[in-house]
Formats: sequence, C-alpha cells, structure tokens
Amino acid sequence: MITRDEAIALDRDDPLAVFRDRFVITEPDLIYLDGNSLGRLPKATVERVRATMVEEWGNGLVGSWRSAWISQPAELGAQLAPLIGADPDEVLMTDQTSVNLYKLAAAALEVQAPRSTVLTDSGNFPSDVYVLSGVAEQAGGSLRMVDSDGGAPSAESIAAALDERVGLVSLSHVNFKSGALLDMDLVTSVSHDAGALTLWDLSHSVGAVPVDLRGAGADLAVGCTYKYLNGGPGAPAFLYVARRLQEKLTQPIRGWWGQQDMFGFDLDYRPAAGMSRFATGTMPMLSLAAAREGIEISAEAGIEQLRTKGKALTSLMVDLFDSLPSKYGFTLGSPRSPEQRGSHVSLRHDDGYRIAQALIGRGVVPDFRAPDLVRLGAAPLYTRFVDVWDAFTRLRDIMERDEHRHYSDQPSGVT
Amino acid sequence: MITRDEAIALDRDDPLAVFRDRFVITEPDLIYLDGNSLGRLPKATVERVRATMVEEWGNGLVGSWRSAWISQPAELGAQLAPLIGADPDEVLMTDQTSVNLYKLAAAALEVQAPRSTVLTDSGNFPSDVYVLSGVAEQAGGSLRMVDSDGGAPSAESIAAALDERVGLVSLSHVNFKSGALLDMDLVTSVSHDAGALTLWDLSHSVGAVPVDLRGAGADLAVGCTYKYLNGGPGAPAFLYVARRLQEKLTQPIRGWWGQQDMFGFDLDYRPAAGMSRFATGTMPMLSLAAAREGIEISAEAGIEQLRTKGKALTSLMVDLFDSLPSKYGFTLGSPRSPEQRGSHVSLRHDDGYRIAQALIGRGVVPDFRAPDLVRLGAAPLYTRFVDVWDAFTRLRDIMERDEHRHYSDQPSGVT
Repeated sequence: MITRDEAIALDRDDPLAVFRDRFVITEPDLIYLDGNSLGRLPKATVERVRATMVEEWGNGLVGSWRSAWISQPAELGAQLAPLIGADPDEVLMTDQTSVNLYKLAAAALEVQAPRSTVLTDSGNFPSDVYVLSGVAEQAGGSLRMVDSDGGAPSAESIAAALDERVGLVSLSHVNFKSGALLDMDLVTSVSHDAGALTLWDLSHSVGAVPVDLRGAGADLAVGCTYKYLNGGPGAPAFLYVARRLQEKLTQPIRGWWGQQDMFGFDLDYRPAAGMSRFATGTMPMLSLAAAREGIEISAEAGIEQLRTKGKALTSLMVDLFDSLPSKYGFTLGSPRSPEQRGSHVSLRHDDGYRIAQALIGRGVVPDFRAPDLVRLGAAPLYTRFVDVWDAFTRLRDIMERDEHRHYSDQPSGVT
Repeated sequence: MITRDEAIALDRDDPLAVFRDRFVITEPDLIYLDGNSLGRLPKATVERVRATMVEEWGNGLVGSWRSAWISQPAELGAQLAPLIGADPDEVLMTDQTSVNLYKLAAAALEVQAPRSTVLTDSGNFPSDVYVLSGVAEQAGGSLRMVDSDGGAPSAESIAAALDERVGLVSLSHVNFKSGALLDMDLVTSVSHDAGALTLWDLSHSVGAVPVDLRGAGADLAVGCTYKYLNGGPGAPAFLYVARRLQEKLTQPIRGWWGQQDMFGFDLDYRPAAGMSRFATGTMPMLSLAAAREGIEISAEAGIEQLRTKGKALTSLMVDLFDSLPSKYGFTLGSPRSPEQRGSHVSLRHDDGYRIAQALIGRGVVPDFRAPDLVRLGAAPLYTRFVDVWDAFTRLRDIMERDEHRHYSDQPSGVT
C-alpha cells in the first residue's frame, strides 16, 4: 500500500492538478467523491451565468435570441462532440436525458417497424428502463431485459437475447452502480448483425471515459452534462444521431425548435434538416450557459488525459480497498481491471447506508445506491490522489471504531 | 387623444408603478414592448441565481438536492397556482411547454380511447399545432382545425366541430397573434358536453390575465414562464392537471422523477401519486431559480391589479391607433373590447416587417409576426403609459417621413 506522501507525490506529478483551482472549493478539507452525481461549480461559471443574465437578458433583451441564444443548442453540441467521438453536426444540446431517450427510442422503433421490442439490461439506470418500457409498449411491443446482476451485460448475453423482434438495443455505456464499462464496439456489432439499432446512455461516461461513437458505428446516444462535465444541477442534456440516420428519423415531440423554418409559423410540421429536427422547445439559457463552461473545461483538459488520471484514481481506490481488513465485510462492487470500468468504484456492504452517513460525518461525500453500494466517484479535474488516500483512512477509522453504528439505518422509502 | 402629460399623470396614479424599479433597465430611453415574448430581468433574480450557484451548488454540492432543489418543481407550481385559479397541488413546474403539451395530450387521448381526434384552431401557436398533430396521429387519429382566421375561435365554432371522435380540445387561452381572449368557461362547457377533455395553453395569459381553471372546470393546462412572469430566456414551463384527473392519467415519458419512489430504483414503473407523476427528469435548477423570482413578483403585485393595468395600457394603444391617420394604412389586428383581449395589441400593415425594424431603429422594441403583424406587448409590471404614448409618437414620425422605406424587407425564410 502506498503512503500518504506517495499519494501527495502523485498529485505533484499530475498534469491535470492545475485544474482543481478552476473550481469553487469552499471547504478545503471536504473530500468530495460524488462528482459523478453532481460535478463541482467551475469558478468561471459564476461570471458566465451572470453575464448571460445581466448583459444578454437584462440589457440585450429579446434581441439576444438571435445574437446569442438560439444557436446555443447546436454550438454546445459541436463543443461536446469530440468528447464522444462524434462530428460537430451530430450532437445537439436539448431537453433532459429522459426526454431525449424517449424521443430517440421512439424515432428508432418507428423506422424499425414491425420490430417493436427494446432490449436493455437489468443494470441500466431505472429511469432509462421506465422510459424504454413506455416507448416499447406504445409501439405495440415490450421491453426485454438481460439480467446483468448489477454488473454489465456481456456482448454474448446481448447477442443471445437478440432476435427478429428486437428493433432497438439501449444500454448505459457505464453502469451507474458497478461502474462496469460495456464494450460499445462489440455490442453495436452484434446488434447490427441482428438488425437492431443501438441507443447509448453516456451519462456516466461523458467527460471521464473516451467514447468513440463513430468508431463503434453507433447509431444513437443521449447523456447528461451535470456529472463529470460539471454543467450544474439539472443541466440540459444532449443527444447524438449518426449523420446517416438524421434524415431517416423523425421524433415524436414535434416542437417548433424542430421545425424547418421555426419563425415561418406554417401550420404543417416539416422536420428541419440535420440535428435540429431532434430539438423541441425553447431551451433554458441560464442553465445552458453553465453547461457551456463545464464542457469547455473538459475539452481543454482533453479526454485522454482525463481518462488516464481517472483510471489511476480508481486503481488507487481498488488498491486501498484491497488493503482493508476482510473483517470489515466489504466486497468490491466494481470490475478490477481499469479498462473495464468507468470513473467510479463501488464498495458493497450490508451496512452501506450507515457507512455512507458516517463518511459524510467525517467529511467524505460518497453516494449511496440501494441496497448496499457505497459509490466513490473520481472526478479527474479536481479529485486528488491524496483525497482518495485520506478517504480510505477515514473509512478505516470508522470501521475500526464501529462509528457507523451510531447512524440510523436507511429510512424505508427514502434512500 | 390624451396628451403626453396626461399619460404621465396616469403613471403617477398607477399603484403598480413602483414595480418598474424592481427590474434591470439599462437603457431608460428604450421602450420595450416585447415583454410578452421575453419579460425583463428582475433585479433580485441576479442575486437569487448567484446564490443558487455559489451557496447551493458550489458550497452545498450534491446535498442541495435534498435540502433545496428536489422540491422546487412542486413548490414553484404551488406558488404559481393562484395566478391560474388552481390549487397548490394541481400545478408542477417541469420541462418546456411543448414537452408538457405532448405529455398531457397523450395522457388525455389514452383515457379517451377510442376517441382519437384532437380539436384545435388555426390561430393556435404553431408549435402546439405540430405537437398536437403528432399526438393525434400516434393515437391513430388526426388533428381537426377550426378556422379562426388569426382571431380566436368562437365557442359556437368549437361546438360545431365537436363529435364523438374528438377526445381532446386544445387551444391557446390568448391568441399569440391577435391577442384575442377565448371564453374558457364556455369552450370547456361545450367540450365537456360533447365528451371531450380540454387542454389550455396559458403562455400568453399567465401573469397578465386572471385565469380561473377551477371555475371553468378545465381539465388540463400548460404554459411558459418567460413572458409576463419574467422567468428568463427559456425558463421552465408548468403543467396543470385537475385533481379529479390526476390518478386517472399517466403520461408517456416515464422518467424517474415521475416514479413513486424515485430513489428506490425498482425496475417496474409505478407512477407517483398526485402531480409528481407528470414530472420526467432532473430539472435545470439555475433556470428554475430565476423563474421563481419572476413568479414571486407577479404574485406580490396581484393578478387583478396586473389585469387592470394591462387593460388600461392596451386600451391606450387602441385609442392611439384610432388617432393614426388612415393614410398610414394600419388596421387593428386585435379585439376592440379590452375584455376580449389579453395584454398585447397587434397592428396590421403590409409593410409590417419594415415598420417593426424602423421602430427598433427609433428605440421602440415591438415584435413582428409574419406576415403583417406589428405586435405591441403591455407588461403591467414595467410598461408605463408614457411609454405607450411615446411609442405611438415615434410610429407617427416614422410613417410621416416614410422612414421604414429605408429598411430592407423581410428576408425570405428568416422572420
């Protein structure tokens, strides 16, 4: 096991260390390991949002729609594109992740008729599961679920569940519980072989794990910007449609932002060319301005560097987990190989809820995911190696003193 | 015609005059008559959004979801409720207007099966027309349109278009072009008599015209908060479902914010009780914070006072229109009776686009709506009587000197 000084040395040699100072950090002693749920506030965001309010809204008034705002969904999409291996005209910032998943899943099933089954896995984020089941039922089909037991489904298990009824395979690229990373190339390939389109949720990858949608031949994707991209609470989401599919698909929510000439005010709906047709209504510009700053910082840092540090941070977490006495009762809830996981590590423990509370009491913020996961996120832009080291030291302390016993168990129905 | 001094006297006696100082006004000479497209920035919004960023996001981090944010959609809905004659537990702030219209229209047609025709009018906002046509087609039906010739459809024309195939009547309460105000009581009554549900778009009423959803027996409504409510560019929207219908309807976009126990992470979708089931995904909190400030100011001013002043302002517009020499070529594009219109007045002119540009050149910001409408909005919180008086003086000047001829005509495809 490495020493604290060695962890500090890793931070000293870290080429991304300078980025930590770009974030608002009001409590320097707080170890924030939940940037994979809500990323930190970039300092520059405060000024950017203020300028959007005071200069663009307050002073520019309605004229700012043309001079500054209406192009934002496409511009932010273009900025985000390199992070996910897409071309600038294949990504659009719009709506929220669940709405985008609905739009693209419905669009896919429409062109795939009569195939109306959607395939997913039981480890997918529940909101995705709900949305996909609704879309499948509307199309007269149903949702089929590969049991991945909290991990990630293998390409083999996906292939085995495919048949001529499956029109769409929709999965999370990184599992929100285990952090397991799916093989996008292989899953896309077996899906295409069986005649299905693919729709990826990149919420837990974007900004932390390089995604190569183009290289994988992926069809569709969605994701949020409030995790590793530090876009702010509930920041708008994005969607991706491969260029070859853009003119073939139409989405079900026919808002005016997806109309060919939105200010022409014709009464007949004619989907716009390119990505614009996947837009819906007027987007919240203050939240979009914040998202922009977050995306820019990640683009500046570079996704390869972010991934390199992310793997080193989560590898340190696994090493420190390995050094915990087995009597504490933890098991590793994430893949051991850094190549097979995203940027978080989950520790399983029957007392996980209490332990998460005890960690918070000791100034370490993890996430808890029912029933038994203590989730530790490594946000490469601001998480330090010494943070990880200190977090495990405090965890050891808690377990050694049974400190978590002083915290009440998870209230039923509220997690 | 009243004199400028008389207009100034009206401002002196205006009980709402004090509210103008609550808004950021960087160019005191600019006459902003487009608050019905994008309302002005309240001064307090700047600080509220800053605090949401710095204190709640930057300092509170992920903990702010529980302590501050997750309840916002319901809290803002409750604040907005009195402005539209709803109970606090009948309104939810969520998504954008077009998404909400989609959700409620689809929910309505599901319970109305086999009735699958949606009835609207040709003067409805085009985005609504697009969305409704999509929902009707998905349900196996179609959109039926009453021709209202740019005005508002009469209850008689609605009644005449109703039959046993119509499941839903969806109309804008105030027409976005003419400002004509529909008789919500009567239209709801004839719709119910024919077995149809009603879905109102309140975007051009909320905050300017008292709406009595309860009194009218209305079923469903949606609306935006960036016009008279001054919620900011693209501010989140709201939806209303009468309490008697809440448990009967389910919406098609099954996001986790609409799930019974959203953090329970069950894989089976079970719609939450009450309004929460009409939520979808994680909401953009910076934009929501801005919307909150806007709603609070309108609630403080009181909808009856806002309406009284709005009627006086638009009546002054009509008086000043009447005093324009007929040789200028304007006709009135709005109802003459203040009871029959919302809070804007449209002037028709073949050269409307150029005239709108010339007004902007003279420091008056109207809106232009193709093909020939110069739209003048009266935002009772900050529009002064003298503003209206000066705007018409400048308009007279422009027409007298043919100043608008110096502006180029509307570029085709861009309005």
